[in-house]
Amino acid sequence: MAEWIGIGRRARRCYGFDEIALVPGTISVNPAEVDTLWSLRELEFKVPFIASAMDGVVDVSFASAMGKLGGLAVLNLDGVQARYEHPEEAIAQIIEGDVEQTTNIVQRLYKEPIKEPLVSKRIEEIKQAKVPCAVSTIPQNAERFGAIAQEAGADIFVVQSTVTTARHIAKAYQPLDFGKFLKTMKIPVMLGNCVTYEQGLELMETGADALLVGVGPGAACTTRGVLGVGVPQVTATVDLAAARDFYYKKTGRYVSIVTDGGMRNGGDICKAFACGSDAVMVGSAFAKAKEAPGGGYHWGMAYPHSSLPRGTRIYVGTTGTLEQILFGPALTDDGSQNLMGALTTCMGTIGAKTIKELQFTEIIIAPSIQTEGKIFQQVQRVGMARK
Amino acid sequence: MAEWIGIGRRARRCYGFDEIALVPGTISVNPAEVDTLWSLRELEFKVPFIASAMDGVVDVSFASAMGKLGGLAVLNLDGVQARYEHPEEAIAQIIEGDVEQTTNIVQRLYKEPIKEPLVSKRIEEIKQAKVPCAVSTIPQNAERFGAIAQEAGADIFVVQSTVTTARHIAKAYQPLDFGKFLKTMKIPVMLGNCVTYEQGLELMETGADALLVGVGPGAACTTRGVLGVGVPQVTATVDLAAARDFYYKKTGRYVSIVTDGGMRNGGDICKAFACGSDAVMVGSAFAKAKEAPGGGYHWGMAYPHSSLPRGTRIYVGTTGTLEQILFGPALTDDGSQNLMGALTTCMGTIGAKTIKELQFTEIIIAPSIQTEGKIFQQVQRVGMARK
Amino acid sequence: MAEWIGIGRRARRCYGFDEIALVPGTISVNPAEVDTLWSLRELEFKVPFIASAMDGVVDVSFASAMGKLGGLAVLNLDGVQARYEHPEEAIAQIIEGDVEQTTNIVQRLYKEPIKEPLVSKRIEEIKQAKVPCAVSTIPQNAERFGAIAQEAGADIFVVQSTVTTARHIAKAYQPLDFGKFLKTMKIPVMLGNCVTYEQGLELMETGADALLVGVGPGAACTTRGVLGVGVPQVTATVDLAAARDFYYKKTGRYVSIVTDGGMRNGGDICKAFACGSDAVMVGSAFAKAKEAPGGGYHWGMAYPHSSLPRGTRIYVGTTGTLEQILFGPALTDDGSQNLMGALTTCMGTIGAKTIKELQFTEIIIAPSIQTEGKIFQQVQRVGMARK
Amino acid sequence: MAEWIGIGRRARRCYGFDEIALVPGTISVNPAEVDTLWSLRELEFKVPFIASAMDGVVDVSFASAMGKLGGLAVLNLDGVQARYEHPEEAIAQIIEGDVEQTTNIVQRLYKEPIKEPLVSKRIEEIKQAKVPCAVSTIPQNAERFGAIAQEAGADIFVVQSTVTTARHIAKAYQPLDFGKFLKTMKIPVMLGNCVTYEQGLELMETGADALLVGVGPGAACTTRGVLGVGVPQVTATVDLAAARDFYYKKTGRYVSIVTDGGMRNGGDICKAFACGSDAVMVGSAFAKAKEAPGGGYHWGMAYPHSSLPRGTRIYVGTTGTLEQILFGPALTDDGSQNLMGALTTCMGTIGAKTIKELQFTEIIIAPSIQTEGKIFQQVQRVGMARK
Repeated sequence: MAEWIGIGRRARRCYGFDEIALVPGTISVNPAEVDTLWSLRELEFKVPFIASAMDGVVDVSFASAMGKLGGLAVLNLDGVQARYEHPEEAIAQIIEGDVEQTTNIVQRLYKEPIKEPLVSKRIEEIKQAKVPCAVSTIPQNAERFGAIAQEAGADIFVVQSTVTTARHIAKAYQPLDFGKFLKTMKIPVMLGNCVTYEQGLELMETGADALLVGVGPGAACTTRGVLGVGVPQVTATVDLAAARDFYYKKTGRYVSIVTDGGMRNGGDICKAFACGSDAVMVGSAFAKAKEAPGGGYHWGMAYPHSSLPRGTRIYVGTTGTLEQILFGPALTDDGSQNLMGALTTCMGTIGAKTIKELQFTEIIIAPSIQTEGKIFQQVQRVGMARK
Repeated sequence: MAEWIGIGRRARRCYGFDEIALVPGTISVNPAEVDTLWSLRELEFKVPFIASAMDGVVDVSFASAMGKLGGLAVLNLDGVQARYEHPEEAIAQIIEGDVEQTTNIVQRLYKEPIKEPLVSKRIEEIKQAKVPCAVSTIPQNAERFGAIAQEAGADIFVVQSTVTTARHIAKAYQPLDFGKFLKTMKIPVMLGNCVTYEQGLELMETGADALLVGVGPGAACTTRGVLGVGVPQVTATVDLAAARDFYYKKTGRYVSIVTDGGMRNGGDICKAFACGSDAVMVGSAFAKAKEAPGGGYHWGMAYPHSSLPRGTRIYVGTTGTLEQILFGPALTDDGSQNLMGALTTCMGTIGAKTIKELQFTEIIIAPSIQTEGKIFQQVQRVGMARK
Repeated sequence: MAEWIGIGRRARRCYGFDEIALVPGTISVNPAEVDTLWSLRELEFKVPFIASAMDGVVDVSFASAMGKLGGLAVLNLDGVQARYEHPEEAIAQIIEGDVEQTTNIVQRLYKEPIKEPLVSKRIEEIKQAKVPCAVSTIPQNAERFGAIAQEAGADIFVVQSTVTTARHIAKAYQPLDFGKFLKTMKIPVMLGNCVTYEQGLELMETGADALLVGVGPGAACTTRGVLGVGVPQVTATVDLAAARDFYYKKTGRYVSIVTDGGMRNGGDICKAFACGSDAVMVGSAFAKAKEAPGGGYHWGMAYPHSSLPRGTRIYVGTTGTLEQILFGPALTDDGSQNLMGALTTCMGTIGAKTIKELQFTEIIIAPSIQTEGKIFQQVQRVGMARK
Repeated sequence: MAEWIGIGRRARRCYGFDEIALVPGTISVNPAEVDTLWSLRELEFKVPFIASAMDGVVDVSFASAMGKLGGLAVLNLDGVQARYEHPEEAIAQIIEGDVEQTTNIVQRLYKEPIKEPLVSKRIEEIKQAKVPCAVSTIPQNAERFGAIAQEAGADIFVVQSTVTTARHIAKAYQPLDFGKFLKTMKIPVMLGNCVTYEQGLELMETGADALLVGVGPGAACTTRGVLGVGVPQVTATVDLAAARDFYYKKTGRYVSIVTDGGMRNGGDICKAFACGSDAVMVGSAFAKAKEAPGGGYHWGMAYPHSSLPRGTRIYVGTTGTLEQILFGPALTDDGSQNLMGALTTCMGTIGAKTIKELQFTEIIIAPSIQTEGKIFQQVQRVGMARK
């Protein structure tokens, strides 16, 4: 709904997770009997959760663990994994540094060149665990690493930057031609991030298999503060789902919509699916896993930007194993553990037997209540965030 | 009013207690002369307040005290009362434990099986005080305990789960047939919780005498954070009252609407009646009574869920006797004492001589003011909440 | 604008001071040349500010000081002034007590009977200073004290309770017949409090000369939390101003509208006039004066209620002389000093040469900004509030 | 969009930076290739940033540094620079004083008369650095200093007060006739501040070259709290841009719109341009520069007002060189450094190749998220603010 923000100028009202809630159904379903399958071409995932391509979250062993539990993890080729033979040493420097110096340390560590043999090596290491392997890079490196990744046996290739458009204008360099690039890739390719219908539709037309949705909403991201740019995730996801459904109707090809970032607990994840997501990409929640290389810390991908860092190092603590985070039993009551239990219980409560049914459930606008508990948790988290 | 939250997707704006206020009348009434009667079949209550079926709030002696003061308390058959011969010992473990370990302790304690003889015993103990006896259980245990409770002399039977629908789908087990079950019960039955018109109407059609309204709003409840599911209490109560009035017009049978949870002070309770409630179910307010077994602590019924706990242990402190909380004199000015005084004074100010008149009073949308006092109280309560 | 808050139920959106702002004019005026006169029958006040009938704010010497500066102060006949020969001793007990015990102390002190000779004495003391004298009481005491006050030489009589209606229903006692009572009074009478058009119109029809507007908004008042009742001051003032203008058009008699409570600084006071007020009644701002008997503390009139106290003791500190608070120079920048300077500067900025022009200035809806400064001030005030 | 705020009274909903966000484009542009030029008659600025005429921000050497980096700084002729031969000593007193005494100290220091030779001297000192020189004064001093400034070689003259209208009414003195005054000035003149279409249009008609937009939004300003007057910057900027475009269409003369105040980070600055600004005037951000004379402190121009101070001394700390603040590399991630990098990256992300294109980008209404990080930053800043 467009509102006048001044003379001759209208702006559309957009919504975020905090502003909506889901409505219990007239029918309910046994949570143990709902179907959460997500598929990307012939790949099938019982757990429609993807761990973000963040250095504090995904390394080879995390990817293995995630794959064995039925989900997917994306290894960041532009981070420390392909720059250092022993990435754990670089990570140790980042998490041991004083918070004031972190930006400097991160910027310095990410100046080390990416080594192509390490790209192949990481992929092969993941494949040895007999799990699906996904790796990511920025558009500038897509052609170079795409070929290597495909060669090394990766199952999914992700091309990701803060905002990715099908049409990028530059004179100083030759922008990536996504359509041409995608024709060279035999494995499914995910592109992102995007937040608008038009932007999404153009990316679908390049041949992408899935789109990552989200600009500016993540906990470790300060894009909206630094650039003023960002669309709240509810509206972004609803819009991209509409683009997907239009494109599917027109072409018969189904492009998955993956909400990426801004989900702080099980409730937000359930809402993302209710807005139309096929799968969700999550960082903070998985940074809390024992398997995460960051030891309870994580930081955004735009963080190491040499002149305009957007992101911050956040301490979330290690709260349990990845299995616990995904399947419980939850030892905490804040919605950060047993995310699959939350999703299936939500589906049961809503009366949705499949993700597809969840995507059409009733949403209400219900501003979140600032209860004491919530304020307490925020204060507590703030206290921990900068340890 | 439905708003667009994205392309092709509308959401209805729902309201909570914080967002509304009541308007003084053109006529006012002497508060001492208003009528607050609530009746459930032949049972009559001068105090339209029901104490929640929470282990920190209701035990046998609390139920006796509440009944003698003219109200009703519900004893939870799925909690410690029917699991332990000496439930006070189990409660002591919960309230003495460190807050980090509480979830574990609670989960362990609630694994002890429920003993049928204890179910009968508790009911008989309450009846010895010559007060109305109400007990509650979850749908899975309704048939088993319903018969026992009726036999033992209970006056009201409550079947309650986070969300209860008349139609539950499951292959692994046989869902409770509410219509069939209710035919076996001679005493009034309350069902809940529900939040939508359709869900409520179907529950009324099963033969229920009263419905509990509220999903996700309580202080000790984190359903909305964990599952994303919840409807603010103002809209939920207004909708269920509309369903009640429609059903009454159609069938001549009056089903009471009981707002359950989310009311933090006398003001919220008055608002619940103004939204259409016939009675209110309250947890936190009564946990502060000297008679409450939790000694100033309380915790939600979904808290002990073995793999997906939703709820938390909250410290509210012991602030006075139950009589003081219900009838004053209030020693505090925060609306937590003399709840009946607040209700009758509100009715006098509004010009409502009966609860029925209060149900039709004018409501305004008036976002609550974050005054210093309020912030202070929140900070103070947060400080106490996790002692 | 009415919004649906649930099925079949609409609620009007009301506004408070925090949500609006005033717009600079196309013309501006030298602040030194604007006219702020307020008149009540033949009485004229250059300073359209009335000090609230609160024991922490107004005593005889404060009333003298206020009158000499061109404003008006109301002495509360139901407080300590007419109960104790030496009211300063009672006040000392209230402000020296621990905050937890204040409710008790206040309740005990206000049980002392009111002495009629003290009523006369206080009025005579104020008149000795040759300033206008206003005294207030609750409706139950109006007939008794009205006659005495008139006899003793009071210039204005105020009948005030939380909510006052022209029609009060009671069997246990004979409600005050305002129309009849007002015929017995030769001096101007102010009635309150009220917040709705209908309620105000009926009070005007009883013969009142001015109405006090405000239920639940004051800093020392918790009516909305305790009873759920209250209307934000912007909407209440606009509505009552509309009632005044309608009544004036119909009868030719002008009844002053006095916004009472909820104004925390010069900005809020300017907004009250812009909403249609003829004068404002202020408590907190004057409690900060060296002349205020509360020594930096104040408390609401509903505070000593024996069974349902609504109000709290608030510490605002002593920040300057009454002259400084009214005329500056302000030593602080938070809008709490030089209130007349703020009003005239606002009028100059707006381009309003009289209060009447200010009453028609453009208002915008502009949610207040939670800047760091504001948060800091709130935290700081909270820290002081319960010293 | 006008809403009813009471019977017979409507108010327009206005918006601030916190409530909006910008939307990524379908096309994106290499940030290094966007054009940020701002021109004022024949003067051209690659950096469309103007440092506010505040004593804690701009002195001669700051103005030189700013000019050399491609931007503009305004020296305040009514501040300490033209009152004291050695202004650094006066500034030292302000920043070393206890926060409670600052108002007094500032008021005393600004009572020293302005010396005309110092006006000329400061201008000549800035011109020696071969950078554009801008100086400001209030309307009362405009004629006197305008002539001197022009004579001394200033390039831009700024006439600024809290609210400036083309028509000011006063009997006690002769108001400045802007039209007449502007005819005497050969150099470009900026006027302000204004916030409404009509007010802006009348100021344009006097011959102004640029208008400063903003009443009440700045961090060091408390106009809205003290006077109740203020318009949020999004609506104010959009409205003034509409006035500019109308005036340009009608007359062919382009008057620059400069948003002044209320921008706390790069994001807010980008939003100001998106609302229609041609350049932005910033105080807080530049007060953090090593070159700023305030040593990390700044204070508003209405602060020293002798009887009604509106503003406060704020501590923002010194975080880097001016070059770092403008061009990075940013050592922090909060959007306070590399403002030009933020602007160009925003333009690239939006797909805007020029400021003119940025002025027409899509804006959405997206209430800002109160994340933990943000709350932490606010708490931290509050802690620092009153050191």
